[in-house]
Amino acid sequence: MSLDHAATKPHDRLAAALSEEMEAVNLLIRERMASEHAPRIPEVTAHLVEAGGKRLRPMLTLASANLCGYEGPYHVHLAATVEFIHTATLLHDDVVDESAQRRGRPTANLLWDNTSSVLVGDYLFARSFQLMTETGSLDVLRILSNAAATIAEGEVLQLTAASNLATSEATYLQVVRGKTAALFSAAMEVGGVIAGRDAETVQALFDYGDALGVGFQIVDDLLDYQGTDATGKNIGDDFRERKLTLPVIRAVAAADAEERAFWVRTIEKGRQEEGDLQTALDLLAKHGTLESTRADALAWMERAKAALDPLPGHDLKDMLLDLADYVVARVR
Amino acid sequence: MSLDHAATKPHDRLAAALSEEMEAVNLLIRERMASEHAPRIPEVTAHLVEAGGKRLRPMLTLASANLCGYEGPYHVHLAATVEFIHTATLLHDDVVDESAQRRGRPTANLLWDNTSSVLVGDYLFARSFQLMTETGSLDVLRILSNAAATIAEGEVLQLTAASNLATSEATYLQVVRGKTAALFSAAMEVGGVIAGRDAETVQALFDYGDALGVGFQIVDDLLDYQGTDATGKNIGDDFRERKLTLPVIRAVAAADAEERAFWVRTIEKGRQEEGDLQTALDLLAKHGTLESTRADALAWMERAKAALDPLPGHDLKDMLLDLADYVVARVR
Repeated sequence: MSLDHAATKPHDRLAAALSEEMEAVNLLIRERMASEHAPRIPEVTAHLVEAGGKRLRPMLTLASANLCGYEGPYHVHLAATVEFIHTATLLHDDVVDESAQRRGRPTANLLWDNTSSVLVGDYLFARSFQLMTETGSLDVLRILSNAAATIAEGEVLQLTAASNLATSEATYLQVVRGKTAALFSAAMEVGGVIAGRDAETVQALFDYGDALGVGFQIVDDLLDYQGTDATGKNIGDDFRERKLTLPVIRAVAAADAEERAFWVRTIEKGRQEEGDLQTALDLLAKHGTLESTRADALAWMERAKAALDPLPGHDLKDMLLDLADYVVARVR
Repeated sequence: MSLDHAATKPHDRLAAALSEEMEAVNLLIRERMASEHAPRIPEVTAHLVEAGGKRLRPMLTLASANLCGYEGPYHVHLAATVEFIHTATLLHDDVVDESAQRRGRPTANLLWDNTSSVLVGDYLFARSFQLMTETGSLDVLRILSNAAATIAEGEVLQLTAASNLATSEATYLQVVRGKTAALFSAAMEVGGVIAGRDAETVQALFDYGDALGVGFQIVDDLLDYQGTDATGKNIGDDFRERKLTLPVIRAVAAADAEERAFWVRTIEKGRQEEGDLQTALDLLAKHGTLESTRADALAWMERAKAALDPLPGHDLKDMLLDLADYVVARVR
């Protein structure tokens, strides 16, 4: 690997290697987010789709299909499908979280209204099912409708687990699978399925996506306590929304009586006062839970890389391996 | 037709004729609305599913499949699919409309919160796609994913058409197709498709569902200005939400300068005062738009009945014909 090579971010290298197909994906996305009758739909969608997201999920699908030697046209449909499901989820998430910022810009629910976010999300979700139906693969439909159910279930679970100090690491993991890993793993899996690959290979692709997704979300939850405004995230959102993410779950488990009272008041009862976020950060530092959470993220990324062992050598495989390293490098 | 026969409501006769299969549908619905990890999901869904809705849409699918001589098991899956899509739509609608009542009971968004309604709706939507995938019919997937897109598009169109006095009858019809007719027609169509019937028959089934749905929604919009609390609807909801339904669109078209100023203030600018609903009702009466809207509903029901001409004589066909008459009888 040349120095020049190493200096380029792995998702930029993926984007370069897949540029022609990603262009086809973007064209299809733009074509399918149109609506003859309701111009509000492309307005809202364009705000999000054109906001410069990394298009990580569709690239996973394209990379997976190419790694498996697929030569048909439908990986482009599947990549667009995955991005539509992701965008629909973001629109609904912002309503649920009452977020004001996404990718460093005001959210759609702030610019338009909650109802537009709900309904345009529904539209994109329906469009995604039209797209995957066009592939003619019932296996693909099964995988992606399962993923959609896991995503929604995870979100509901997060909602009911929020503010519940009894939330376990196992529940956290289920939430994370729903929030992130389910779509990462499905995005990888369908690439192998559309290429007609054997069960072992398809499982390897799934496992990579699953571990990458879990690790990615753990990193995201870490950044919620460490990030700067440059990431476009508001620091402490999860704390204010009383979400029990891994750093807090571990700090609660290690808390003495006084600390526990703090968590009960701020998270369980939601009676937050000025200075509480700083106290929370101090407690996470005291118990080293940001460090132990970071160690978990690293372990997941090692698992992701090991999952790809059965796949033959390939430039795209190298990029996927580097991608796993890069994700945790954000919090190294 | 005996007197006894005539005294029974057609959807009750449909329910009786299809009781065994509807039991299988209800069983499947209960089974699939479960969630291992998130008990909030069946709570919210049960509130709505068990609320004593008429299950009209799944009965249309069962009736259509039976009319076409289908003998397999998948019309039950399709009927449950259609009810899930309908329930998901209701959950999201209540968030959008900020409704407080549905089927005479408090809405889920009032009992739980908007976020539960959004996320549980997403879950049911994903579940519906899992169910239809199990039928193994790509035609069915195409029809139902198209219907889902039309539904969402119609809702967005309604949102942007709301408060816009320039809304035409054509736009109204597009909204109505999205709100109601798209799922009625798809429910009928998939019954014929799963039975492997020819294009002409499938078209006839579609046309019946489409006309029944349009007529049904026109009647519903009429009842919004005529209904009593017995219907579980709040009179004047559409007026308060500044929705342009057919009676108002026609009154606006016939308005003199003073009346137009009233509509501009109440609908376009949304500055409503006490007594405005009564004034609106007076204007609808003055221009006879409730009567002309009623005439349209009748015409749609004649169209629905004529659509079934190509189908052979059958008890279920008679019930579908009676159903069309019964829907308009609510406002006769």
